[in-house]
Amino acid sequence: MLFDLPLDRLREYRPERDEPADFDEFWTATLEEARALRTPPSFEPYDAGLATVEVFDVTFSGFGGHPIKAWLLLPRHIEGRLPCVVEYIGYNGGRGLPHEWLTWSAAGYAHLVMDTRGQGSGWLSGDTPDPDSDGSPQTPGFMTRGILDPRRYYYRRVFTDAVRAVETAREHPRVDPDRVVVAGISQGGGITLAAAALDRKVAAALCDVPFLCHYRRATEITDEMPYGEISQYCKIHRDHVDRVFDTLRYFDGVNFAARATAPALFSVALMDAICPPSTVFAAYNHYAGEKSIEVWRYNGHEGGAGFQRAVQIRFLAKLFGGEVSAG
Amino acid sequence: MLFDLPLDRLREYRPERDEPADFDEFWTATLEEARALRTPPSFEPYDAGLATVEVFDVTFSGFGGHPIKAWLLLPRHIEGRLPCVVEYIGYNGGRGLPHEWLTWSAAGYAHLVMDTRGQGSGWLSGDTPDPDSDGSPQTPGFMTRGILDPRRYYYRRVFTDAVRAVETAREHPRVDPDRVVVAGISQGGGITLAAAALDRKVAAALCDVPFLCHYRRATEITDEMPYGEISQYCKIHRDHVDRVFDTLRYFDGVNFAARATAPALFSVALMDAICPPSTVFAAYNHYAGEKSIEVWRYNGHEGGAGFQRAVQIRFLAKLFGGEVSAG
Amino acid sequence: MLFDLPLDRLREYRPERDEPADFDEFWTATLEEARALRTPPSFEPYDAGLATVEVFDVTFSGFGGHPIKAWLLLPRHIEGRLPCVVEYIGYNGGRGLPHEWLTWSAAGYAHLVMDTRGQGSGWLSGDTPDPDSDGSPQTPGFMTRGILDPRRYYYRRVFTDAVRAVETAREHPRVDPDRVVVAGISQGGGITLAAAALDRKVAAALCDVPFLCHYRRATEITDEMPYGEISQYCKIHRDHVDRVFDTLRYFDGVNFAARATAPALFSVALMDAICPPSTVFAAYNHYAGEKSIEVWRYNGHEGGAGFQRAVQIRFLAKLFGGEVSAG
Amino acid sequence: MLFDLPLDRLREYRPERDEPADFDEFWTATLEEARALRTPPSFEPYDAGLATVEVFDVTFSGFGGHPIKAWLLLPRHIEGRLPCVVEYIGYNGGRGLPHEWLTWSAAGYAHLVMDTRGQGSGWLSGDTPDPDSDGSPQTPGFMTRGILDPRRYYYRRVFTDAVRAVETAREHPRVDPDRVVVAGISQGGGITLAAAALDRKVAAALCDVPFLCHYRRATEITDEMPYGEISQYCKIHRDHVDRVFDTLRYFDGVNFAARATAPALFSVALMDAICPPSTVFAAYNHYAGEKSIEVWRYNGHEGGAGFQRAVQIRFLAKLFGGEVSAG
Amino acid sequence: MLFDLPLDRLREYRPERDEPADFDEFWTATLEEARALRTPPSFEPYDAGLATVEVFDVTFSGFGGHPIKAWLLLPRHIEGRLPCVVEYIGYNGGRGLPHEWLTWSAAGYAHLVMDTRGQGSGWLSGDTPDPDSDGSPQTPGFMTRGILDPRRYYYRRVFTDAVRAVETAREHPRVDPDRVVVAGISQGGGITLAAAALDRKVAAALCDVPFLCHYRRATEITDEMPYGEISQYCKIHRDHVDRVFDTLRYFDGVNFAARATAPALFSVALMDAICPPSTVFAAYNHYAGEKSIEVWRYNGHEGGAGFQRAVQIRFLAKLFGGEVSAG
Amino acid sequence: MLFDLPLDRLREYRPERDEPADFDEFWTATLEEARALRTPPSFEPYDAGLATVEVFDVTFSGFGGHPIKAWLLLPRHIEGRLPCVVEYIGYNGGRGLPHEWLTWSAAGYAHLVMDTRGQGSGWLSGDTPDPDSDGSPQTPGFMTRGILDPRRYYYRRVFTDAVRAVETAREHPRVDPDRVVVAGISQGGGITLAAAALDRKVAAALCDVPFLCHYRRATEITDEMPYGEISQYCKIHRDHVDRVFDTLRYFDGVNFAARATAPALFSVALMDAICPPSTVFAAYNHYAGEKSIEVWRYNGHEGGAGFQRAVQIRFLAKLFGGEVSAG
Repeated sequence: MLFDLPLDRLREYRPERDEPADFDEFWTATLEEARALRTPPSFEPYDAGLATVEVFDVTFSGFGGHPIKAWLLLPRHIEGRLPCVVEYIGYNGGRGLPHEWLTWSAAGYAHLVMDTRGQGSGWLSGDTPDPDSDGSPQTPGFMTRGILDPRRYYYRRVFTDAVRAVETAREHPRVDPDRVVVAGISQGGGITLAAAALDRKVAAALCDVPFLCHYRRATEITDEMPYGEISQYCKIHRDHVDRVFDTLRYFDGVNFAARATAPALFSVALMDAICPPSTVFAAYNHYAGEKSIEVWRYNGHEGGAGFQRAVQIRFLAKLFGGEVSAG
Repeated sequence: MLFDLPLDRLREYRPERDEPADFDEFWTATLEEARALRTPPSFEPYDAGLATVEVFDVTFSGFGGHPIKAWLLLPRHIEGRLPCVVEYIGYNGGRGLPHEWLTWSAAGYAHLVMDTRGQGSGWLSGDTPDPDSDGSPQTPGFMTRGILDPRRYYYRRVFTDAVRAVETAREHPRVDPDRVVVAGISQGGGITLAAAALDRKVAAALCDVPFLCHYRRATEITDEMPYGEISQYCKIHRDHVDRVFDTLRYFDGVNFAARATAPALFSVALMDAICPPSTVFAAYNHYAGEKSIEVWRYNGHEGGAGFQRAVQIRFLAKLFGGEVSAG
Repeated sequence: MLFDLPLDRLREYRPERDEPADFDEFWTATLEEARALRTPPSFEPYDAGLATVEVFDVTFSGFGGHPIKAWLLLPRHIEGRLPCVVEYIGYNGGRGLPHEWLTWSAAGYAHLVMDTRGQGSGWLSGDTPDPDSDGSPQTPGFMTRGILDPRRYYYRRVFTDAVRAVETAREHPRVDPDRVVVAGISQGGGITLAAAALDRKVAAALCDVPFLCHYRRATEITDEMPYGEISQYCKIHRDHVDRVFDTLRYFDGVNFAARATAPALFSVALMDAICPPSTVFAAYNHYAGEKSIEVWRYNGHEGGAGFQRAVQIRFLAKLFGGEVSAG
Repeated sequence: MLFDLPLDRLREYRPERDEPADFDEFWTATLEEARALRTPPSFEPYDAGLATVEVFDVTFSGFGGHPIKAWLLLPRHIEGRLPCVVEYIGYNGGRGLPHEWLTWSAAGYAHLVMDTRGQGSGWLSGDTPDPDSDGSPQTPGFMTRGILDPRRYYYRRVFTDAVRAVETAREHPRVDPDRVVVAGISQGGGITLAAAALDRKVAAALCDVPFLCHYRRATEITDEMPYGEISQYCKIHRDHVDRVFDTLRYFDGVNFAARATAPALFSVALMDAICPPSTVFAAYNHYAGEKSIEVWRYNGHEGGAGFQRAVQIRFLAKLFGGEVSAG
Repeated sequence: MLFDLPLDRLREYRPERDEPADFDEFWTATLEEARALRTPPSFEPYDAGLATVEVFDVTFSGFGGHPIKAWLLLPRHIEGRLPCVVEYIGYNGGRGLPHEWLTWSAAGYAHLVMDTRGQGSGWLSGDTPDPDSDGSPQTPGFMTRGILDPRRYYYRRVFTDAVRAVETAREHPRVDPDRVVVAGISQGGGITLAAAALDRKVAAALCDVPFLCHYRRATEITDEMPYGEISQYCKIHRDHVDRVFDTLRYFDGVNFAARATAPALFSVALMDAICPPSTVFAAYNHYAGEKSIEVWRYNGHEGGAGFQRAVQIRFLAKLFGGEVSAG
Repeated sequence: MLFDLPLDRLREYRPERDEPADFDEFWTATLEEARALRTPPSFEPYDAGLATVEVFDVTFSGFGGHPIKAWLLLPRHIEGRLPCVVEYIGYNGGRGLPHEWLTWSAAGYAHLVMDTRGQGSGWLSGDTPDPDSDGSPQTPGFMTRGILDPRRYYYRRVFTDAVRAVETAREHPRVDPDRVVVAGISQGGGITLAAAALDRKVAAALCDVPFLCHYRRATEITDEMPYGEISQYCKIHRDHVDRVFDTLRYFDGVNFAARATAPALFSVALMDAICPPSTVFAAYNHYAGEKSIEVWRYNGHEGGAGFQRAVQIRFLAKLFGGEVSAG
């Protein structure tokens, strides 16, 4: 069933942005700080038993110079510099095992899958700690880790890692640095928006049913996790509700969307109670680059799934001149 | 939590088989009938936008000569006849899209994914009708379609399709007919047991958390679907309980296991309430070929997932002399 | 709680009808086809152990000439031709046993209870197969059986059976052919609308909390089954959403209501999340005959239950001159 | 799924009875007290719009001389004194409307349906107050009304009403006083056991999935309501657990069963979590009269439903020489 | 999530009151009747093992002269006449044990905690019967006890007890009769409104997330218990819906609020589905005295909990000149 | 319902302890390390508006020298050195507000309530960070924070804080250092066992429905949180199951119980699915000091609640010569 606005109103839904004055300074300083602590990435060959894919176990320095894990998958039999998809993962998943990420290398791309620090105990397992948490009381989960201070908030670290992942991909000799695409589903979609806004040289953004957008409305129209973690925190820390939303203004996908300029392909599901369609359209309608959106009418948070993947394969093939799928 | 027998008792759990006297005749006649209606398979090239995988849209004749759909995926850059994994799908899924099945071709195998007739509206979509149903009243789902008569029972048609899928794979010029492996998870695992018993030339069987085993016990220790469909049917058709279980004797994975001789790798999850571990061990302990089993101690029906896939990749690589993963 | 429109807006809710141009041709041809395959009904005496009710096990030819089962109950001690109630059954129920249908014979009517083909494994058991299914992948249940083609859609067969049931009742020597009433609850109510539209000689229609009306809105305001089966199908078969609703236009109670002219007594429950009140009023407000509606303010899908039955007994007694309840 | 003992152990399950020394005195005094307050019953004709059934709105004096409502239904066209079924109702139901009770009159019996005092707001509506409650704190529901004192316990009043209902039936001129049968499902089955023990002249007892048996075990193996009301009370009134079970000894169907001598037909459902099969067999195995039991293997608390009704119709027809169903 | 009106509309939500003409006469007569049956209260010292609190087990005469239990807690080491908080308890709780009510005596107040007749089996245990029930069929719970007649309705007795509790507190030598405050959460808040309206000399009212307000709307926007008990009753007693709401007009907190004049501190929670915010604001906006309201934005029915208690401690300290917290 | 062993077997349930050889060394070193980083506690007066209780906002140095928050409550009007209850809090609660902890000061004791680091977003709010986490991927919650290494495991820090809380209490001039009692419910009960084992000078232990005992069995017989967090972790981190349980051996309440010697009062609830009774009895039966246990037969994890508090007040009064409750 539908529970949010009807589609015609969603297409026009473009709420006022709630943005702190120092939004850009905040992020510029944050990224500079991370780059100052940068160490060179390592790309270790990894035997995943795959005949057609070359796999590297990647470690690069993210926020605070912390080591962040990733997989890099390359189609073994395709020569030359490849366009690369940098992929961010959905909430509480980790990078898992390489053979769980075979789509993009099969489609002819380099594919870097970034582990999300601290996550990876909910579905795919993760390997990257989040060592810089201040350990403040938080709701179980990651949404409220350090939420009383933008500088300590969890996603400050994650979004920084995400930009560094793009930079890391560009450093690999098999990757064409001008054709790095950012992509992700749900939390991965929210991170994609941040990365596309913070690294304006990305070639495209694939943003599916994005999470981390329009937090206030999200908490007011759904109880589903993980937005519900914010509500749960506010329920107990009744004296900190305003501080919570002050912090979240620095991390709102709507504000990132308004700064991103790469061509973007979004998707949204009209029956998605986890990432309600109005929060997705709020970001989409503010998105500053060329854009299109696939609307899945009878889907929940699973969105278009394999159907959307097929649309994306065609979208990138067209963007990059179609030479890829020629194999 | 555990809800079935403890592991040490599971390892010894080998209940009496409940087998009709004409079990083998039934299946011999069934397969002969299908082969008599056989038409040649078609392998249509399919553009899935994949650079490293060659995809064919397969149609072969199954039970009753009905057209059954499948995907055949071949690693595009590997030469010669390939070992082939014939995969059967979990309950209520269909063959979906080719890029949703990339593991085995990436690992260097030909990979034939058989659509399950009538299914494919629960998770991945399906394309194959089940035209021969007699339409008798049934519980929603497939478990009780035609259940009052072994000759009309749904899985008679599916298991026949499964054998025909193996035969179809062998007909493709890129497939090495002596190295066809059958594989599947859950319902796919149950079909795997049937196929391994009914086609004794298969090279191996990969059988994960198999469904369709030891029906009576299953309905007595779990309410979960899809075994629960049988219970639901018996709940309403109170006068047909005995007929139901008389039919199911022809379709019990335990009885198939006792006839299969290919080397087999099973998996089981100790907290699996959908395919309870005792029903899996009942089949495993009766399995007539060389066998081993991975035990996932804290998993439900998801079982070993990617971890199990990694074990299987190594298992087949070893079985076939390891030449595959060399790429 | 209320979840649909408030009552004053419901009373005026009369949405545009969405009707294919060939709606009437479709149904005329369908019925002609069925009548061409007609075979004579059989009325076998059945010993149900009932002292005051004469019971017949009925078989008549429905869609495709298929044998459809029914019960006919006659008050044993009342002489002469009787008015007859032809009753259609709620979703997933079957005709069960004769002593489960005692109301209308006790009230002095002949009572023909039509089995719903394929159904009867959810609450009362059924005895009638649906042999003409094409077996296409469907969501568990009946709502999406053959849904991609109006000619193969399940309810084409059921609605045809329903008209044939009325014709069958008229053939029995104890039934007064001018006083045949159609009646049903939920799915039975939806079938009633179809029967009243397709057989304009029925004497009255009793239509309780009808299902099968205004499908699009239903799937948009409720997740409850069985409308939810359509949503579930569209969720997986993302590429067929438009075809689904194109088919359903031929089977919408709203369109049937606009063609029915017999006096009708409806009922609706304002807290009914299974058959939402706006979908019921959509049909009611389009109903072309004399009509009235009982509104049950604090009820869900159970509606008025025994209270509604009492209203109906009085309604028919008045309609038929009251001679019945005189006993 | 099964959750209680396996069937072979159930058939032998005959736990020690826990009976107060003054059990019989308690009930003898209770009944004498009620009879001392007896007033003559009234049988008011009631127009239910039924052609074949004569209906009376009955008021008789129960416990404390309180007016208890009932329906009496007689087959209108059958002459002479009739055997009579006195029926007790399931938990939280009331006598509803006459046309909701048509089975036994259709089968040729007089049928007296006793309202259960205070109940009748859960499914069918009731019309009889329970004026003698002392109003002590109780868990919502009826199981703990007055539970700290056997003389104030709710079921002392109900069981007394039940005996008085039998006596009332015998007073009607159309009822054969030697052929009064007691019957009921669930709570009605529990009351049936009490009535059969307290009025040794009843001709038979039909006792389906009886409630109110073996309370201690019931509360230890199920959380389902209504046994769960006792657990809930004990959970809060932690200091009264022993008093609760001291009271319940006077009201245990196991103790009544050991005193009942009429021929009895029981039913039990092996998957019944509301009235677990071991509590039913505890009563059945202690039952002192001739007895048989229908075992429904795949049913929950709905038990045999219409199937069981058919068995009962045959059982009584045989018991009473079969002249009834001759019509 | 929010499910009721947005905050700005809540602040203005002041629906028409639905009040019977004899509302005031009804309550005047009711209280006079109770006072006519008044007997002197008893204050029995009770050893709760508490060093700083003097505890009395109180019995006073309530409605019908019935004995009502309460605890009186006095700070042991504070001299002189004390302001007193009379507290009413939430639904289905009882007075429990004295050490479960330590806040107000610790804050320097006398504290009288009134047991709610018949309740006390849901969380804290109760000790007070409700002997005057007429025993009419009711939904489990208390909301529909005697609901067909205002004179027999359960809350007529409870609200009368509540006024008598205030009068009882004033009789104790340690209590300052001019500084008696009424207070309660949920049901306790609803009773507080009644007491503040019926005893105009109370010094203040502390009314948290009050229940028992604006019944019709409550039943239309939430299914949660205990408002849901009314809906459940209406669902079964379909013929009595109007009578139910006619009775409730005498017991609506909105109508009491319009008559209360003591300074009041309310609280409301915007995500409270048990006592929806519009029902609370309906009472608050009609409240006739000086008033303020704490709005808890991310809370459900737990409301402000300890945070609200802190606000109340400061509110009363300020109201009474702050001499209290000086200790 | 009961789901664990019956009471007679629980009373004898004393499983083998699974203890690492260096258990004592581990803890000795851990405590020494913390004490080496010790800084003096601060006791800041806090105005909670309470007339009879003096409140201090306490900060003391715990594990790693981290600042840990606590409340100290003293009965304002009682002279001299007081026995002190050091209380640990249940899972995911924090120290909240002082007026939420009034029992023990009212009973005449000093009362120190220790905040649990990182917790306090589930029910009462917390104020203490857990800064030393290594940030490894963990299941949401605290059970698996650092679980792959005993030295990094979360409860190593918490148990150390707990010992330091006892030492802090002893430093306050109003506390009698020889009469410090440790106490807690659920997680608080588990921490109590650790504190009683690690500080052998505590005067008594009050241990209610303790959590953190017999982890392996707990995860095998219940899915409830928070033990379920361990299962969830093992479900995803399939390769680390053994390491998880190796770590937990250092933190098992069973192993602590075997080292504790202070007189102890336990409680257990037989229907507690969160802390199953066999895990409680495993600790109780190994407890090395004088001990008794209250068994709550019909309770879940809420256990004896206020009833248990009353037992504890008497227990301590007796232990300390009864001079306290004299007031």
